[in-house]
Amino acid sequence: MAFDVLQDKIKAKKNPTVAGLDARVEYVPPAILKKYTDQYGETLEAAALAVKDFDCGLIDALADVVPAVKPQAAYFECLGWQGMKVLEEVIAYAKSKDLYVIADIKRGDIGTTATAYSEAWLGTTKVGSTDCSVFDADCVTLNGYMGSDAIKPFLKDCTERGKSAFVLCKTSNPSSVELQDLVAGDRLVYTVMGDLVSRWGGRTKDRYGYLPLGAVVGATHPSVLRELRYRLDKVFFLVPGYGAQGGTAADVRYAFDALGRGAIINASRSIMCAWQKSGRDGEDYQDAARAAAEKMRDELKRYITIL
Amino acid sequence: MAFDVLQDKIKAKKNPTVAGLDARVEYVPPAILKKYTDQYGETLEAAALAVKDFDCGLIDALADVVPAVKPQAAYFECLGWQGMKVLEEVIAYAKSKDLYVIADIKRGDIGTTATAYSEAWLGTTKVGSTDCSVFDADCVTLNGYMGSDAIKPFLKDCTERGKSAFVLCKTSNPSSVELQDLVAGDRLVYTVMGDLVSRWGGRTKDRYGYLPLGAVVGATHPSVLRELRYRLDKVFFLVPGYGAQGGTAADVRYAFDALGRGAIINASRSIMCAWQKSGRDGEDYQDAARAAAEKMRDELKRYITIL
Repeated sequence: MAFDVLQDKIKAKKNPTVAGLDARVEYVPPAILKKYTDQYGETLEAAALAVKDFDCGLIDALADVVPAVKPQAAYFECLGWQGMKVLEEVIAYAKSKDLYVIADIKRGDIGTTATAYSEAWLGTTKVGSTDCSVFDADCVTLNGYMGSDAIKPFLKDCTERGKSAFVLCKTSNPSSVELQDLVAGDRLVYTVMGDLVSRWGGRTKDRYGYLPLGAVVGATHPSVLRELRYRLDKVFFLVPGYGAQGGTAADVRYAFDALGRGAIINASRSIMCAWQKSGRDGEDYQDAARAAAEKMRDELKRYITIL
Repeated sequence: MAFDVLQDKIKAKKNPTVAGLDARVEYVPPAILKKYTDQYGETLEAAALAVKDFDCGLIDALADVVPAVKPQAAYFECLGWQGMKVLEEVIAYAKSKDLYVIADIKRGDIGTTATAYSEAWLGTTKVGSTDCSVFDADCVTLNGYMGSDAIKPFLKDCTERGKSAFVLCKTSNPSSVELQDLVAGDRLVYTVMGDLVSRWGGRTKDRYGYLPLGAVVGATHPSVLRELRYRLDKVFFLVPGYGAQGGTAADVRYAFDALGRGAIINASRSIMCAWQKSGRDGEDYQDAARAAAEKMRDELKRYITIL
């Protein structure tokens, strides 16, 4: 199955947090970056190796605190193929540490193009008669603006390979209102998207009662979280916007079901860049990240009991 | 500026066609694939080198017929970092042949993540004090479901570097109705998106009167093309869905302004896979692609006169 694997890990660590791996070059502690620029110059190769070093260090520090990590594809793409190479390595490393890996790609395209994206991120690509594994994450984020043609090709890999996907529904950013909050009949656009996700997800629920297709619902809209939790009772939620964007533990409690399940809360900069606040130039980035993740876990624990 | 560079190339070749480079492994003529699998086995590396060989051969065959090419990121991503490496090379090769390159990435994310995507595809990534060029296309496709936060970071590179972007508005696929055709007040969702694109695009028009931000409007909806051409008179259109999906030259004429400008029509499989119809196993893939592109140009010429 799909999200039950994630829910098991959340239960084991008593922590419904996913740590974002969103390493812009300037988020990498200076000593790590210097190590590679000294060797390779100020190149994409140096930056990619520095990001890999930093991300793997974060994974080591966080592996027994958080159940999942979420690498953001953009920060690897902006380092070119060298970045994509280390992204493959970071995903493999996280999986070797028994973390659930959500590739934050927000892809959305149709037909054979969507199939190619699914092959890239969840499945395998056929070369001749050989199935080649590519990025091989456990889960991806998707954009459903183009409709079911953009989502259904991923469901094959979800079903056959126990993978999962989150579709953008109501996002945490200020301008999400421009399209997502339009009134469409007796619903809003994000409600329509949520209903579509629920329909696209099919009928096969996992051990905890959730479909393989989840939804992204931002922490910055607690009333929306409450409304959608009630409305989409079989849809697992990925909740961005905690911390830096203003969402609190009190806000995100509405994302969970009565048993404290069915959602995972993302934190990126607050964990990854915690070192920037300690004044030690990043020497202590692992301790700082771990402490930030433990603090978040304990904040969430005040409001959410995972049964 | 941005789209005027494209419009100049369209005028020079009297052809408003962009050739999609959507090479699934099975679209590569068998002899080309075999050349690389013999050397590297059935691996992603072999597939990526075969795709590069095929794409560059298509570019050679098409360079004096079409003004632009549109590589589809998915077909490179599904070959992993090896695919992304050849994508960089294919983009550079197309530019060296004076073709306008539209990277079909359909990205949509917010804030610094959107900035990272823009750095990757249109701008440069800073490593230390060095600006590193990455994929460096002329233009990208974007998804605006998250609102202006997902689009505005790209406008900086559009303005400063003479680049451009198309935002998905009304797409050519059947399930586009599910979200894009919802009634929202006195408009449909795709009309709202079109109006947003027009607003986000700013006020600086190019020599032909177009903004740096365009819209994707499918060939399969001629009445929508007509309606949006009238409504969004400063917005350049990228029109997919010609040929295989059912759009005809008679349909797409509505995408153009009175001077035959302001739009470019995409064709992918009909050009790229033309070799599959000649029964010669792809030996003649260049001639077949060129003939298909010339045929399409001549069909369009019956309905559109470019002044």
